[in-house]
Amino acid sequence: MSQRQLKLGAFMRPVSIHTGAWRYPGAFPDANFNFNHYKRFIQTLERGRFDAFFMADHLALLNMPIEALKRSHTVSSFDPLTLLPALAAVTEHIGLIATASTTYNEPYHIARKFASLDHISGGRAGWNLVTTSNPDAALNFGQDEHMVHGERYQRAREFLDVVTGLWDGWADDALIRDVESGIFFDPERVRPLNHTGPEFKVRGPLNVARPIQGWPVIVQAGASEAGKQVAAETAEAVFAGVGTLADGQRLYADIKGRMPALGRDPDHLKILPGAFVVVGETLAEARAKRDHLDSLVHYDSAIASLSIALGTDASAFDPDRPLPPIPDTNQSKSGRERTIALAEREGLTVRQLAQRLGGYGGLAMVGTPSMIADEMEAWLEGRASDGFNVMFPWLPGGLDEFVDQVVPELQRRGLFRREYEGRTLRENLGLPRPPNRLFPES
Amino acid sequence: MSQRQLKLGAFMRPVSIHTGAWRYPGAFPDANFNFNHYKRFIQTLERGRFDAFFMADHLALLNMPIEALKRSHTVSSFDPLTLLPALAAVTEHIGLIATASTTYNEPYHIARKFASLDHISGGRAGWNLVTTSNPDAALNFGQDEHMVHGERYQRAREFLDVVTGLWDGWADDALIRDVESGIFFDPERVRPLNHTGPEFKVRGPLNVARPIQGWPVIVQAGASEAGKQVAAETAEAVFAGVGTLADGQRLYADIKGRMPALGRDPDHLKILPGAFVVVGETLAEARAKRDHLDSLVHYDSAIASLSIALGTDASAFDPDRPLPPIPDTNQSKSGRERTIALAEREGLTVRQLAQRLGGYGGLAMVGTPSMIADEMEAWLEGRASDGFNVMFPWLPGGLDEFVDQVVPELQRRGLFRREYEGRTLRENLGLPRPPNRLFPES
Repeated sequence: MSQRQLKLGAFMRPVSIHTGAWRYPGAFPDANFNFNHYKRFIQTLERGRFDAFFMADHLALLNMPIEALKRSHTVSSFDPLTLLPALAAVTEHIGLIATASTTYNEPYHIARKFASLDHISGGRAGWNLVTTSNPDAALNFGQDEHMVHGERYQRAREFLDVVTGLWDGWADDALIRDVESGIFFDPERVRPLNHTGPEFKVRGPLNVARPIQGWPVIVQAGASEAGKQVAAETAEAVFAGVGTLADGQRLYADIKGRMPALGRDPDHLKILPGAFVVVGETLAEARAKRDHLDSLVHYDSAIASLSIALGTDASAFDPDRPLPPIPDTNQSKSGRERTIALAEREGLTVRQLAQRLGGYGGLAMVGTPSMIADEMEAWLEGRASDGFNVMFPWLPGGLDEFVDQVVPELQRRGLFRREYEGRTLRENLGLPRPPNRLFPES
Repeated sequence: MSQRQLKLGAFMRPVSIHTGAWRYPGAFPDANFNFNHYKRFIQTLERGRFDAFFMADHLALLNMPIEALKRSHTVSSFDPLTLLPALAAVTEHIGLIATASTTYNEPYHIARKFASLDHISGGRAGWNLVTTSNPDAALNFGQDEHMVHGERYQRAREFLDVVTGLWDGWADDALIRDVESGIFFDPERVRPLNHTGPEFKVRGPLNVARPIQGWPVIVQAGASEAGKQVAAETAEAVFAGVGTLADGQRLYADIKGRMPALGRDPDHLKILPGAFVVVGETLAEARAKRDHLDSLVHYDSAIASLSIALGTDASAFDPDRPLPPIPDTNQSKSGRERTIALAEREGLTVRQLAQRLGGYGGLAMVGTPSMIADEMEAWLEGRASDGFNVMFPWLPGGLDEFVDQVVPELQRRGLFRREYEGRTLRENLGLPRPPNRLFPES
């Protein structure tokens, strides 16, 4: 079909991003460390024809105050590169995007693990390349101080060069396996990389054949100036954190606008904002679900989030009254204004506002399947996104509702596939297979 | 039953260790990078009640001359820690032992990956801790020179301390997940490690709950003095490379003899020599199979192996005549003598001898199922081993024959389980669950 099509990822952190999710009626509180639950989730997503299962990650436990930490199900999780191969074995079509840091890894390992995952999954691997902004991670890897932002991005670029160079070290036809002559691979079609740069010195070649997709799909999430530039240069999908359609349009135009000058087709990068979706039979029911979910965020955690958003200590406010007037401070003016506007627009008490922000404060689509489809369609047609990384309010319920109610509505409108188009993640996302830079003819 | 029982691992490197295996009639030449083949292998091994699938590893491609390399199916493979989670998802009982180097990894990653694998597999993970003796690996990880042997072992000990400390950082009952109160985990039952040593500085805690087995099973393979001592102190299974029953008895007595003084029960370490097993309906048929397999080793590769074993250049010898007299040299006297004795004992030509060594030159059991069972029983009863890491001559044939013919014979004699005894690898191997050092009461 010629109509623009949505691409949908499932954003798993490690299941729901909402801090109250595990307490919702019917939720699996133990989902983080229960493989059978993950298996159920991903098989449902595959039935819903999702492009990918997108596994977020952290490299430390202690990235929030202990009072919030002890209530949170989002800070501990399986290693994505250990979970996703297991999920590959129980699925056939859905993409598998693992987050892996360029700051705390070696490129030889990362190249090999993603190449292995790509082979094991039949060409369904994606790499969400992050530079790790959590300073607690440094303390788990022998460093006292976190690498500064610019240095992390410089390392990330070189890291990606090394990894893609290692993937290209095998021609696609290098493995001959000629039983008669006894030649397993053609040594002329395998080359060392001999990379020497400021951060890395890697000889190669890799000890895994070139990935089925050539390269696993390269995914990024950076919203900083450096992050957007790296994305325009190298990313094939971007997980964007934008709050409004207008913000989405700006980011979309910004990143895609950089690509032609870099020799890249803007269609070869898919911008997928995170969207927290709550489905109801009526708008009122959907809102009531969200309100109940938010009410499960403990007030101690919630008020800390509100204080950060307002730039002022909110703990002395009366929780059951509207927000009092907030004095101007030097910090986070736009965040404060957005928060005050939200409270006024929805008539929220301090407690409700705090719990909203402590649960999930980003882009949300709350309503009937038809209303959610309207909103997704508006983003797609308005060139604010190429699809979404869907965040489920709780699991399995919120995920099942999306697949059983929203996906059919999107399909009915011709906005979303009824069957997978291709065999690989790259084919389903509509991305070209990268040519091999070391063996251009292959 | 009270009789001593064999423990059996399947040694996969990455499938057969024999360099001619991929050319054997009926073999899968593409097994290295074909997940469906691995799935078939491990499901057959599970049907045969094997304790574990043991995945060897290298961290470089070029660890032999290019003429041998291009003929070899053993030098390239999936990353074990990516393959084994996928195999966990398609099995229920068999253990999953992944090789991972302490020289080229970070302990936080290794602790997390094995903890994740242990949860995903329901307590079936094992870690074959290696220090990586292949100097080519250094060149893939930013180093010009390989770390010297003593330094590697010092690092390995500290690495293991950090990893086990991270596993112990969560009490077994730390995850409360009390939906009513909203407490997900008890912060009093999770502790940072705060390790500072000569090699590593790691704060912790890990962001994964304590493994189901407490610790995944610790496996080692070192045969050096340092390796044997580390094994006696810390290993729970040893992959031993011994050629004869007498050698096996010496190693067995040596390692187990060190344990009581270290406060360890010798039964809590299983010594499992690698055994290359070729099954036939008659001895003659088994030998013919091995001869045919050896004949598939290319002469260029074979003669290089023979030259190394003899300590002299064998390339000028007449391949179709018996071995000529070999002059004494300063190096590898015992290896030379063993090689000469082998040629005389079996009446091998230079070509046959070279191909034997170029294929697989270690401990082999070649014969009928009954003869192989006799030999395994003799090792077990003679306290030369607690079982074996079985190496299959080619796959799937050699593996299927072992499971369908040798396993039933071992079971008939009461030497091997008919059903798995426990739920975890540790339970099947008869190893205790390690107490938690940070939370002794848990």
